[in-house]
This record gives sequence, C-alpha cells and structure tokens, in this order.
Amino acid sequence: MAVIGPSARRIAERAAALARIGAVGEGVTRLGLTPEERRAHALVARWLAELGGRVRRDEAGNVFARVGGGGSPVLIGSHLDSVPEGGRYDGALGVVVAVEALEALRAAKVVLRRPVEVVGWADEEGVRFGLGLYGSSAAFGRLPAQAAERTDARGVSIREALRALGLRGDPARARIRKGSLRAYIEPHIEQGPRLARQGRALAVVTTIVGIAHGRVTVRGRQDHAGTTPMSERRDALAAAADLIAAIARAAAARRDAVATVGEIAVRPGAKNVVPGECAFSLDVRAPRERDVAAVLRAVRVAAAALDRERGVRTSLGRMDRVPVTALDRSLRGLLRRACAAAGVDAPELVSGAGHDAMNAQLDGVPAGMIFIRSRGGSHSPREAADPRDAARAAAALAEALRELCG
Amino acid sequence: MAVIGPSARRIAERAAALARIGAVGEGVTRLGLTPEERRAHALVARWLAELGGRVRRDEAGNVFARVGGGGSPVLIGSHLDSVPEGGRYDGALGVVVAVEALEALRAAKVVLRRPVEVVGWADEEGVRFGLGLYGSSAAFGRLPAQAAERTDARGVSIREALRALGLRGDPARARIRKGSLRAYIEPHIEQGPRLARQGRALAVVTTIVGIAHGRVTVRGRQDHAGTTPMSERRDALAAAADLIAAIARAAAARRDAVATVGEIAVRPGAKNVVPGECAFSLDVRAPRERDVAAVLRAVRVAAAALDRERGVRTSLGRMDRVPVTALDRSLRGLLRRACAAAGVDAPELVSGAGHDAMNAQLDGVPAGMIFIRSRGGSHSPREAADPRDAARAAAALAEALRELCG
Repeated sequence: MAVIGPSARRIAERAAALARIGAVGEGVTRLGLTPEERRAHALVARWLAELGGRVRRDEAGNVFARVGGGGSPVLIGSHLDSVPEGGRYDGALGVVVAVEALEALRAAKVVLRRPVEVVGWADEEGVRFGLGLYGSSAAFGRLPAQAAERTDARGVSIREALRALGLRGDPARARIRKGSLRAYIEPHIEQGPRLARQGRALAVVTTIVGIAHGRVTVRGRQDHAGTTPMSERRDALAAAADLIAAIARAAAARRDAVATVGEIAVRPGAKNVVPGECAFSLDVRAPRERDVAAVLRAVRVAAAALDRERGVRTSLGRMDRVPVTALDRSLRGLLRRACAAAGVDAPELVSGAGHDAMNAQLDGVPAGMIFIRSRGGSHSPREAADPRDAARAAAALAEALRELCG
Repeated sequence: MAVIGPSARRIAERAAALARIGAVGEGVTRLGLTPEERRAHALVARWLAELGGRVRRDEAGNVFARVGGGGSPVLIGSHLDSVPEGGRYDGALGVVVAVEALEALRAAKVVLRRPVEVVGWADEEGVRFGLGLYGSSAAFGRLPAQAAERTDARGVSIREALRALGLRGDPARARIRKGSLRAYIEPHIEQGPRLARQGRALAVVTTIVGIAHGRVTVRGRQDHAGTTPMSERRDALAAAADLIAAIARAAAARRDAVATVGEIAVRPGAKNVVPGECAFSLDVRAPRERDVAAVLRAVRVAAAALDRERGVRTSLGRMDRVPVTALDRSLRGLLRRACAAAGVDAPELVSGAGHDAMNAQLDGVPAGMIFIRSRGGSHSPREAADPRDAARAAAALAEALRELCG
C-alpha cells in the first residue's frame, strides 16, 4: 500500500519561499557559498527541525538533518544553489520533495527504524568557482587537489568564502566516512523535454552522461578597425566564430551528444579594435565516452585547420572530465516499484546533466535518482514543474524509504 | 628654404614620456577624461609653456596653448587618449610633432605674425563613453544631444567625469566660435601598412572614410547545456557566430570596406547554460557612402535569414554615422609643398580611421592631415613609428606654418 499524504500545496509554497532567496526578476541567482545559498540552507534546516530532524552543517557548507533510528542512514536530497538568472526548481525542488517525503512518512505514522538523512548540497552548479558538484565532491572525497584555493571572479577563494560563512575553510573535512551510508536517492527535475512529451510524471535515471569541459583560447593579432584591410586581419573573434560553428556541427553529428559555448570574452574589447584574443568555455556531453572523445577530436581538428587558414593560434586548455556514471541497478528497480506504488508508471531515462548522485555512486554508495517532469528547459527562469508531479515523487520516495528504513 | 631643426631625439623622448602615463606592459591604457589623460595634457602644457605658449583648458577637457601674434590662429595637434592596451603613437605622436614644429620655428627664429595654437584633444577614441572624437566634437559644435549624460561601464557620466577633473560638467561650453580659426592641421601616424610598403615617410590625407557603428543583439532561448538536444536549441551565441562570419564576408566583398566586431558579451554567461542573449558591437567603414550602406544592408539580410532559420530575434540598434569627409583641397596642396620642402615626396592617401580633423572640416574650418609612416598596425602595443619620420613631419608642419602665419 502506498504512503499517502504528500501535499502539492506545501511543496509549491516551499519552492516559492526558496525562490524568494536570490530572486532576480522572474529568475533566481543563488550562487554557491554565498549568503543567499546559506539562507536557503537555513530555511530548509528550519523545516527539518520542525520534523524532529537533528541538523548539522559540514565543513564544505552542506547542510544535513537526520531523523529515525540508529545505524547507517539513507541519504536523500539535492542542491540549493542556482545558475545566474536560473529557475526555481533545479536542485531546490529535489530538497523540497525530500522534506515532503518525511512529512508524508510522519503523516502516515511510519516508524523509521533506520535513519534517513536529508541533505542540501552546496554549490552544485560550480558557476562561482568553476567547480561543479562541489559540495557532494567534498562529502564523497572527490574534490580536486587544492580545491580550497580556487577563486571566483573577484579573487575570493573557496577557503575565504567558507570562512565568511563561519566555517574553518577546509572543505576536505566534510568527507563522509566510506561505508557509512546505505544509499543516496536524489529527486530532481528532468531539465529536458522527454517526460513531458511522453506524458509521464516521473522517471528513474539509469546513467548520467560523461562531461568534458575546459577553455579554448584563440590568439590572433590586435589591429586598428579602420586601417587594417579585411584580407590582412588575424581577427581572434572571427576565427572563434568559425570554431563555435564547427563545435555545434561536431556535436550534432553524434546522436545524444551536445556541446555548448556558454561564456565568451575578447581582448582588448573595444568597438574600434580588431580582437587580438578570444577565450570561451566548451562543455561537451554524451552518454557514451567514445562520443565525448569524438566531439573533442573534431574540435581539435577544426582548430588546427583554423590556425593554418587564418594565421591564429588556438589552444584547448586542460579538459575537466566527468566519467559516464551508471547508477545502482538494484536501487533502480526499487525506485520503479516505489513509483508504481505511488501510481506512476516511470520509464528509465539517461540524464544529460551532471548530478550530485554521480559522486555518491563513484564513491561506492548505491545511488538512485527520480526525475520529475519539467517544462521550459532549465537553467532559465522559464523552468517549470507541476507541484502535483513533485508530490508524486515525494510519495514514491517515501515508499522507497519505508522499504529501506521502515 | 625648409625650416631645419626638428629633433628626432627630442620627439622620441617626449613620446616615451607620454607612454609612461598609463603604461600597461608594453602598451598604454589612457582612456578619455581620466586622471591619466589629464596628466598627459599637463605634461604637454608644460612643454608648451616653456615655449612661451599661453595655456588654457576648455570645458570639454581639451588643452590648448597659443604662441605668436594676433588674429585668427591656425590650430595644430591631435589627441592624447588611447584605446585599452593601445600603442604609444596613435594621437600622442601628432601632439609631440606639433610641439616640435614650434620648437623648430623658434630654433629658426621665425617670427609668427599670426598665432599658432596647439591642441591636445580629449577622448578621441570614445572607448569609455562610446562617443568617439568627443573633444573635437565639443569644440566644433558636433556633440550629440545629451552627450554630457552618457555614462561609462561604471555608470559615471561625462558630466561627472568632467567635474572630477575640476571642470563645470558642460562640454558644450567648449564650442569654438565659428569663423575664429583659419585652419586646422593634424599630424598623425598612418595606422596602416601603405606608406611602409611604398617606402614613403609621409602622406597627405585626401578623404576620411565614412563610419557606421552600433550594437547588434541576438535573442535566443536560455537552456540547460546538458539536457537540451542540439536540434532544439535557440542558441544566441551560435547564431551570433554565423552573423559575425556573414559580416566579415559582406565587408570583404566591397573594395576598401572593412567591418569589425570588437566587443561581445553573452547572457547569462555560464559554461553550463546555453546563451539566451548575445550582444556585440559593429563598426563598418568605407571611403564611399554607398559601400557603407551596402555592407549594412548585407548584414540586415543575413540577420533576417538567421531569424528564420534559427528561431532567434536579431536587432541592429541605432547606427551612429560619420559621413565620408573630404579634407580642404587648398590645404592639401600646401601640405604637399611643405612636405616637398622638408625633403619628402608625400603621396595622397585616404584615411581608414576617423580623426578629429573631420569635425573641423565639417564645421567649416579648412582642415588638413599629415600621415606619418607607421608599422605594427595600430590600437596595439606593437604600433611603431620612426622618430626621424616624425621629425620630417614636424619640419613639413613648420614649413606650412611659416607660410600660413610667418
């Protein structure tokens, strides 16, 4: 019998309350390790304390609250930061659904003999310090070397940002002891159009795509915009424009692969000066490692051709790689049964976005994810989810927790 | 008989002294209406005061110094600001050459029965406030409406910048009474490769190209970089990249036309977000009005095609136009004779760059320009001129002044 009781209305109210923290017009700007993210964590901690949760903050800036009996907990939750001018559901809705699953279990008077812990991860988006999945990386021992010294655009390091939040400045101390978690389950909006097209409310994630990201720099020659004939230019931006077009073609040629240039800057950056240098970000994703590698290879070939044809020098910086991650097979089965118990026939989907669940799975913690149907894309103020779908996810999650911890 | 005496060594020393104001690595960043530009003006004023010049500053921030007898003066000089990371000769060398012409006249004991006035114009490059030829526009009554309210990237207005320099904040007060100048002569580096190729030291300018500049905005749809298939994107930067390539093709198709995209920005500007908006600058130049118009037409056609094919909305903002300007015919003859007297066979050239001389000519003041051979392009730290060529220009200018004012 399914757990009943998740409230779509309470979910909508709580999502709206979180969206007011860092609100910018219709969107949300709540970057990692900022006072805004901290306020979102504090609000979630208050809800959990009211549910009897024992709240703690770790040294990476993640927030946790535990309910139920002793032993190894099942961890549930998601992140509370956003991209600049992002939407209100990416990350935040997963945390609200996790809290709502506990509300539903309490309403159904389910006794949790084993503990459940809710987590709000810090800085999943990695916008501020260029380090995606930061909070879960710290917790699962996957931070890169010298992570604390990484700086934001103003030169503030992660160490300094943590200290400004009242922590000691050493995120590696957030490491969760290996073997101390039974499982990690993350509810999250789909951030893509597939569930909406299929007319399904929820999905269970099978695999998270592999990601490569880095910076591309094109060096040409800075010249006067009026006195340099078109034929004599080594215009770094004109060359970069060709390369950006080639990147899009390379991704479009591989099924399910995507490539994005989301940041770009030119030097010196004046209307009457031919750009001498252009730097941009490159983000390549695919559910098969060989497709990620093939797109990167095509970009390098296109860059080498540009260097010959346009007299520029193009360099692809070090690429950060996130491997393709298959989530835990037995949790996948459990979550599909739990969705069915909540009245939803949930298909299996690949995730095109990286998620904190990857870090858990890669650290040996069985990880699973429930996707919630969403519209309007994601990383955008137009991002939208139906609170009734979120309530269905909370019911499914509660069902899974009853099976695991009840 | 030619005036002798201009010192290549003094010219080099003075150019180096100016280059130390705002020095950045090998280059110079001395933007308009900044303390750096003010210091450059003050240094030039000191040299001129030592030559007996009566120094004054106008309400636009231009600096003047007058020598010689009464009546309507001949104005000579150039500007003292630079682009970001620009070279040391663009503008500054023209002012140094003008001062050197006075040095040469004094050394030759030429009595100036009529006055000569040296000017150092403020903010010719227009980088800071987006208003090129600002100082001479104020002096020659060609400032656009509300110019004082234009702001820089930090929101500081021209009015406020002038007040910070100790002026009253109303650049229109710098208007030179119509008919009060006999002529304006501007020495300036060529900023292009033609004189160097021809093996000539100096040229006399016939015409200054027409310029159109404005901003282009491409609006697409902000989306998640991982979950939005390539075929469903309305990527504003990918569309802009196509348009930038089309702009270069449109300019290359017209002889002597050039088009430059020197500034670009995307929103929201995160590596994991498909850009929803991309804005860039567009600068189009040609010695014939019909070619400027043809390039703009081709850009509009390309933009409309993109809108249809990629589902974006492209808008070309208001284009600032500077007309093609023919300089004074009789001054051209005088300057060619003066160059010959200084031992240089000076060809006539079109200027691909805008110059303060345009504003004088358009205001009815007969204007002429002497180009000095330069290498390494311009608007770049690689920009270079030989002080001996500059000394030849000073000798020619002194010769012209002896004819006009001696």
